[in-house]
Amino acid sequence: MYYMGVDLGGTNIKVGVVNDAMDIVSSASVPTDPEKGGDYIVSSIIQAVRDATSRAGLTLDDIQSIGVGSPGHIDEVKGVIRFSGNLNWRNFPIVSKLAAGLEDKPVYLGNDANVAALGEYLAGSAKDASSAAIITLGTGVGAGIIIDGKMVSGCDSGASEMGHMVIRKGGRHCTCGRDGCWEAYSSATGLINMTREAMDRDPETAMWEIVRRENKVSGRTAFLAAKAGDKTGQEVVDEYISYLACGIGNLINILQPEIVSLGGGVSKEGENLLVPLRKEVEKEVFGGHVVTEIRQCTLGNDAGIIGAAMLGAR
Amino acid sequence: MYYMGVDLGGTNIKVGVVNDAMDIVSSASVPTDPEKGGDYIVSSIIQAVRDATSRAGLTLDDIQSIGVGSPGHIDEVKGVIRFSGNLNWRNFPIVSKLAAGLEDKPVYLGNDANVAALGEYLAGSAKDASSAAIITLGTGVGAGIIIDGKMVSGCDSGASEMGHMVIRKGGRHCTCGRDGCWEAYSSATGLINMTREAMDRDPETAMWEIVRRENKVSGRTAFLAAKAGDKTGQEVVDEYISYLACGIGNLINILQPEIVSLGGGVSKEGENLLVPLRKEVEKEVFGGHVVTEIRQCTLGNDAGIIGAAMLGAR
Repeated sequence: MYYMGVDLGGTNIKVGVVNDAMDIVSSASVPTDPEKGGDYIVSSIIQAVRDATSRAGLTLDDIQSIGVGSPGHIDEVKGVIRFSGNLNWRNFPIVSKLAAGLEDKPVYLGNDANVAALGEYLAGSAKDASSAAIITLGTGVGAGIIIDGKMVSGCDSGASEMGHMVIRKGGRHCTCGRDGCWEAYSSATGLINMTREAMDRDPETAMWEIVRRENKVSGRTAFLAAKAGDKTGQEVVDEYISYLACGIGNLINILQPEIVSLGGGVSKEGENLLVPLRKEVEKEVFGGHVVTEIRQCTLGNDAGIIGAAMLGAR
Repeated sequence: MYYMGVDLGGTNIKVGVVNDAMDIVSSASVPTDPEKGGDYIVSSIIQAVRDATSRAGLTLDDIQSIGVGSPGHIDEVKGVIRFSGNLNWRNFPIVSKLAAGLEDKPVYLGNDANVAALGEYLAGSAKDASSAAIITLGTGVGAGIIIDGKMVSGCDSGASEMGHMVIRKGGRHCTCGRDGCWEAYSSATGLINMTREAMDRDPETAMWEIVRRENKVSGRTAFLAAKAGDKTGQEVVDEYISYLACGIGNLINILQPEIVSLGGGVSKEGENLLVPLRKEVEKEVFGGHVVTEIRQCTLGNDAGIIGAAMLGAR
């Protein structure tokens, strides 16, 4: 049996045919072009679904269901995207529109971060765990929580906004309106802000040279400098890790998942990030006894497609 | 069918026979006397269980199972209390010991805060909800989370330590060793500390008179002063509510439960606390749209007995 996964992004729509072993056997990608409107996006998705299906040597009859991971505020139950700033949608009934264009196949909808977390849980770094939290350290801090094999989506599809957990009341302003959210510190954006501030304080730091070479301040700047022995770079890394550990410590104290997996740009630092992070988390966990394993995500961008596809396989 | 619930406290052991409608039909209470050792406590529990059974006009044959809510760090699966400071226990196999003294009836073990939350969820303020978080504002901040009717206990019985979620990194020192835990602000102890500090700052506050009258600073002091129009008292109440709302906002952003119920001493302020609290929580919830209802717990101390009893009914 095959399942179709749709990763609906602000820039590209990526779809993939996923088999029972949770491998992507064929895929297709088209630009989203959100300015062309909702019905255009729906027809693009339908075309991409048909393309990926035929590329796999299949017909729609072979596809059990279609799952969509969407950004924004969604209503999983009604199959409606209530609001998406990126896609400029309000109360868009994407599920019924897709079903109408795809031979009334079952269509499922999930929040993109939740769906990617589900993929990582089912087929990636948290495979075989009973519970996991998947944290994406990108522009924001995305999260998905799975307990006993089920996504925690909240009573109104609004759970897992873990990036908007305040860890420093009155601290850095967050895009959500609160002050001191985890996201304001532990996203790549937060790291870049810390890096910029440290550079402004220290005209001698090796980070200036790295930024000249790479032409921008990035989430890597401080890590590269620290590796080269730069003191200010190391301070930024230490500060970043201390906030990341604070949020992960909270998460463990609240839910104690078997696995916490980190994805997104910053997670590419790998053990370079994870080794000191695990040490910090030990100080944060109630009772000091850390059972939860902290890992790096393994599926990358495929997690969104696989997770979306698996919405229909459960 | 009847179920026995045991609420094992540091001072008293309270047991109750609970029927299918989740009413306590008879009860018994004995002092814990922890200094007399574990086997003494076990025999006290057994005696109380027998007393409550016969008081209900029943025999042990009518009791389906026995559930125990225990303080400390427990292993639900093995039925062992790993560590309890109050009871001075380490790796105490309470389940097998109780079963041996109670005709090998099934015995279940749960953390006291989790078990009380389960009682409140099944029979009290969160009855009929799909998900709930029960927060106890007492000496500490206890919590229990229920999702889809199941207690979230973590991969090693260590979840729901929500009081030890840092909401102000680098803030007030907490008994757990971290700085800035929710418990350090939102427990009755945190409120009393805030009250004391405000009194020290303001020799004119009406709180001094209240303390003279009541002979102690309590969680009520600031609320009483605020009600009487005292500015400093009102400031303490506002500060307390702002921290409480911060933690509840985090909780909603992470889990979005249908209901958040508040129990423990501070919750007795009722709507006096809840009305301004709900207003503050609105500012804290991602997207500003609060679906979660905030209520006062209704079962009081019975929650622990009912929840423990129901461990065996599920």
